[in-house]
Amino acid sequence: MFENIIKNVHEKTPLVHCITNYVTVNDVANVLLACGGSPIMADDERDAVEITAICDALVINIGTLNERTIATMLKTGKRANELSHPVVLDPVGAGASALRTDTTFKLLKEVEFAVVRGNISEIKTISRGRGTTKGVDADVSDAVTDENLDEAISFVKELSGQIGSIVTVTGAIDIVADQSKAYIIRNGHPMMSRITGTGCMLTALIAAYCAANPHRHLEATAAAVCAFGLSGELAYDKLSKADGGTASFRTCLIDALSKLDANTLKGGMKIESR
Amino acid sequence: MFENIIKNVHEKTPLVHCITNYVTVNDVANVLLACGGSPIMADDERDAVEITAICDALVINIGTLNERTIATMLKTGKRANELSHPVVLDPVGAGASALRTDTTFKLLKEVEFAVVRGNISEIKTISRGRGTTKGVDADVSDAVTDENLDEAISFVKELSGQIGSIVTVTGAIDIVADQSKAYIIRNGHPMMSRITGTGCMLTALIAAYCAANPHRHLEATAAAVCAFGLSGELAYDKLSKADGGTASFRTCLIDALSKLDANTLKGGMKIESR
Amino acid sequence: MFENIIKNVHEKTPLVHCITNYVTVNDVANVLLACGGSPIMADDERDAVEITAICDALVINIGTLNERTIATMLKTGKRANELSHPVVLDPVGAGASALRTDTTFKLLKEVEFAVVRGNISEIKTISRGRGTTKGVDADVSDAVTDENLDEAISFVKELSGQIGSIVTVTGAIDIVADQSKAYIIRNGHPMMSRITGTGCMLTALIAAYCAANPHRHLEATAAAVCAFGLSGELAYDKLSKADGGTASFRTCLIDALSKLDANTLKGGMKIESR
Repeated sequence: MFENIIKNVHEKTPLVHCITNYVTVNDVANVLLACGGSPIMADDERDAVEITAICDALVINIGTLNERTIATMLKTGKRANELSHPVVLDPVGAGASALRTDTTFKLLKEVEFAVVRGNISEIKTISRGRGTTKGVDADVSDAVTDENLDEAISFVKELSGQIGSIVTVTGAIDIVADQSKAYIIRNGHPMMSRITGTGCMLTALIAAYCAANPHRHLEATAAAVCAFGLSGELAYDKLSKADGGTASFRTCLIDALSKLDANTLKGGMKIESR
Repeated sequence: MFENIIKNVHEKTPLVHCITNYVTVNDVANVLLACGGSPIMADDERDAVEITAICDALVINIGTLNERTIATMLKTGKRANELSHPVVLDPVGAGASALRTDTTFKLLKEVEFAVVRGNISEIKTISRGRGTTKGVDADVSDAVTDENLDEAISFVKELSGQIGSIVTVTGAIDIVADQSKAYIIRNGHPMMSRITGTGCMLTALIAAYCAANPHRHLEATAAAVCAFGLSGELAYDKLSKADGGTASFRTCLIDALSKLDANTLKGGMKIESR
Repeated sequence: MFENIIKNVHEKTPLVHCITNYVTVNDVANVLLACGGSPIMADDERDAVEITAICDALVINIGTLNERTIATMLKTGKRANELSHPVVLDPVGAGASALRTDTTFKLLKEVEFAVVRGNISEIKTISRGRGTTKGVDADVSDAVTDENLDEAISFVKELSGQIGSIVTVTGAIDIVADQSKAYIIRNGHPMMSRITGTGCMLTALIAAYCAANPHRHLEATAAAVCAFGLSGELAYDKLSKADGGTASFRTCLIDALSKLDANTLKGGMKIESR
């Protein structure tokens, strides 16, 4: 179902401009290279507006935001919109501080996002205009489970309609939806929450997949979520044979992504649509 | 002796706010996750003061400091004090430049630190108001050895009394002391000085251990120093079987920390008190 | 031929000050430690000018440059010149934006560089005063090949004469030249382009090698290029036995560098001079 999507990434080598936090930026760059894309980071306003023009997609990730980079995010996001590049938002910690929440809303108002990806607490913050979140992790009380899945799907579809972006909520169960269709994805492994940056990495992966598949953003996003979750499963398999810990898992995760092909993805996807 | 300390970290998942340098920030985040805590990084003043309120501890690490982040450190440190969160200082490179030395003194004056951790050159700089240091590494002539250990212990205890913080000096022999009691720790491995960031990682680990053990900061700090040093020993054991180099050692170190439990710590601690 | 060069690095432990991008800074620090040197990062103007005085070399890498750090680069570069420290420039993405191109020219005008290292597109931008580049990667049409090698060597020698620095162009075939002599190096592996930061790491390695070999900068630079390329080959050998991906390759690369000695370098160098 997603064979061509992953092939297009390998063939087109999308160049993804990231305005992203300095905590996980190296992993984000390596994930983009691992998936067959190419990264460039630029956060000075004069640099970023021009750099984004030679790229195929833009990631705006608000972790470690500051006054200077917020201005760059807004201006560069608008420029990417003019160029019809897909722009993907990762509202890291929205709900954890007024600056993060306000910046998220300002970005959503002034920039058109192809995809917004966050954990359920961040996405609920966007929906409610306020939120509770445990730092940059989701609040347990918000988690998407089999019990509240129908409700969660409706919520994500509705929000997608309101903000005009594909909405991706990641957690034990992932939901990728526009206002009319939702993919429910059950790939992934709990170890992914024991290393920093898996959310940031996935956001960048989504941008690469969308850039290489311009007319199929919903499917491209779902494919990226499957690919990353499956890489986590393959990483855990390898890790458990080698008696490794969390740092080895990080290495195995990016390794698995760098070796993932269309056939492995096809065989390993755990996805349904509603 | 420290069984409950490590258990408390696993049970409470302390959220540690870090204002830290961009060189080692990713390792710091992964170490906090590996030990059972959770990291959040924020260095914009408007963001950080609010973020620290939802956290359990604050790390102030002055590596790659700048005018903007120094202001954030001061303001956020005071806010964390108001909230009675443990605040841990890593005076990276104090003594190597006036800006780093002055900032260290300004922080010590305006913020109350639960723990200050540095190499012997940085700690002597704090004591003397000036210092010589080889960049961010300790000056060899300053090293704590078996020959000058008694003198070093007295020095650390006295400094602790002066600044009102637990003082932790790390090197081949580590000293953790308040004004009346010192722990001498001989865990660790020389390979730890062949990768960047082991000091920064330990500082964050201390913050997580103190946050989860609010009434036992001295023991929590000593336990963190043992745990990290022992992880270094276990990492070297694994590395030497696999014929790895320094990058593998970094992976093995965080792996070992992520798998360390109370029993392993109990069996491997090399600690005495005076 | 280069036996003493690598020995000098191990014996002198050169301290290298890096003003560098936050994407690859951790790898840069770990590469400096792996090769036998020591890193210090400082980018605040007040800090950096003083820090550079206690160091043995300076790296200026313009990736993720901004207004504040550009000012620091200029002032610190001049200070390092006064102190006769070797200064190495990595013009990351020169040609990709006016800010990067202009900053490169400003640096070349105001600071004297011992070595400038870039991919062929960045180096052509310096030569032509303008350029096309695919983000931070070289444009395929620019690549140095066996067919255009003579022409490329002449170009690099001429540019070296014009700017008064050793010029290092890296790619499948590497060229290290001053105006009268060129080394052509065929070490390296294509996997090196599938992880981020290999260029940044090599630039820092060159700085360490030059600092430890003050009267032999051309040979020191060529040795660093051989050493890094050979480490890439050794890393790939190890990787292919372990069925690893790109993240494992990164680990193996730094591992190999940390274990590289004069004999291995001597046996593995693929170098000629013209």
